[in-house]
Amino acid sequence: MIQKHLSSTSIDQLSKTEKTHLINSLGGFKSVGLIGTQNKMGVTNLAIFSSIFHLGANPPLIALIFRPTPPVRDTFNNILETGFYTINHLNENIYKQAHQTSARYNASSSEFDITGLTAEYKNNFSAPFVQESNIQIGVQFKEKIDIAINNTTMVIGEIVHIYFPENCQSADGFIDLEKANTVTCSGLDCYHTTVKLDRLSYAKPNLEITSLL
Amino acid sequence: MIQKHLSSTSIDQLSKTEKTHLINSLGGFKSVGLIGTQNKMGVTNLAIFSSIFHLGANPPLIALIFRPTPPVRDTFNNILETGFYTINHLNENIYKQAHQTSARYNASSSEFDITGLTAEYKNNFSAPFVQESNIQIGVQFKEKIDIAINNTTMVIGEIVHIYFPENCQSADGFIDLEKANTVTCSGLDCYHTTVKLDRLSYAKPNLEITSLL
Repeated sequence: MIQKHLSSTSIDQLSKTEKTHLINSLGGFKSVGLIGTQNKMGVTNLAIFSSIFHLGANPPLIALIFRPTPPVRDTFNNILETGFYTINHLNENIYKQAHQTSARYNASSSEFDITGLTAEYKNNFSAPFVQESNIQIGVQFKEKIDIAINNTTMVIGEIVHIYFPENCQSADGFIDLEKANTVTCSGLDCYHTTVKLDRLSYAKPNLEITSLL
Repeated sequence: MIQKHLSSTSIDQLSKTEKTHLINSLGGFKSVGLIGTQNKMGVTNLAIFSSIFHLGANPPLIALIFRPTPPVRDTFNNILETGFYTINHLNENIYKQAHQTSARYNASSSEFDITGLTAEYKNNFSAPFVQESNIQIGVQFKEKIDIAINNTTMVIGEIVHIYFPENCQSADGFIDLEKANTVTCSGLDCYHTTVKLDRLSYAKPNLEITSLL
């Protein structure tokens, strides 16, 4: 294996495209999901995000990063306007339609109509879920934090509804995302299924790790 | 498939363990890496984090979330004390040793010694890389943001050194993490390799997505 090294100076000299693909890749495999929203007039929006991350379990919080540029503006505005949104895991059957939602459509057209994905409303939650998604999360907006260094915004929400396939949950609460067919992504545009290596026991000093499977 | 539904009320009633596993799983597949640091006295530290995420490419920023509790204190203190740290991707050969670093060792013992992973110093960068890692990132601390809602802290750093296998990079800059054997994790303790579905072209309205592979 020949190892390549890039320093700050070499990184600076890369073309914008090359830099974007490279730096995006370095962050590692990412959580990718579809954010479902609607505005006060009921116009729905669906947008793919690969900047979703677990923030904490107590209270149950999930966060995402908004870039300073479109096409995420509709999602952002709808979340602030209504206070509610959904996060829907991608699977092998819908990742191409999900990717298509990243195209810059105007605010009056819904990505649900364009991609053929189905808006699903349930339990009086105001934001639309994606019916074709196996793991669906209803989220209530809590706060936004502006990140001045690169003009991005972190949006934090509390998980208030969870839908998942019952046979994918272990006795200890863990959900087997692989069994639920959830996919991951890398870089800007690469999608992957997964193959489980192992679940490992809680690590303690001087104690050998064992498999939980 | 039988779908299970949990509302806020049901989530609140879960045991702490069940809630932690469940909510951690919902965030989707995560980037997982080893953070290498040392304090001013030269005592090294190595700790696994599954809260690493891409923040932006221009400037090249990467972030991670620190929980309010140990065992992350050494890493946190070392980053603030020295201003530099490394992020090292996990692969199939080292994920068990990596997991072991989550045990609560005292500050005077180094997880490098304990796990047998090798501290590697190069190009005058003060923090130790993990020699067994195929993708290694040298990071300069930029700022920390306190997240009051759950007492966590986001640490933002700028990528100043990158090491990766030359044959894993595409012409457009993308690094094939799968080819580099980088693994992903889900929940608190589950590790996975990946299988590529596709790389998809940049999405535009009224244009069919094509494969970049």
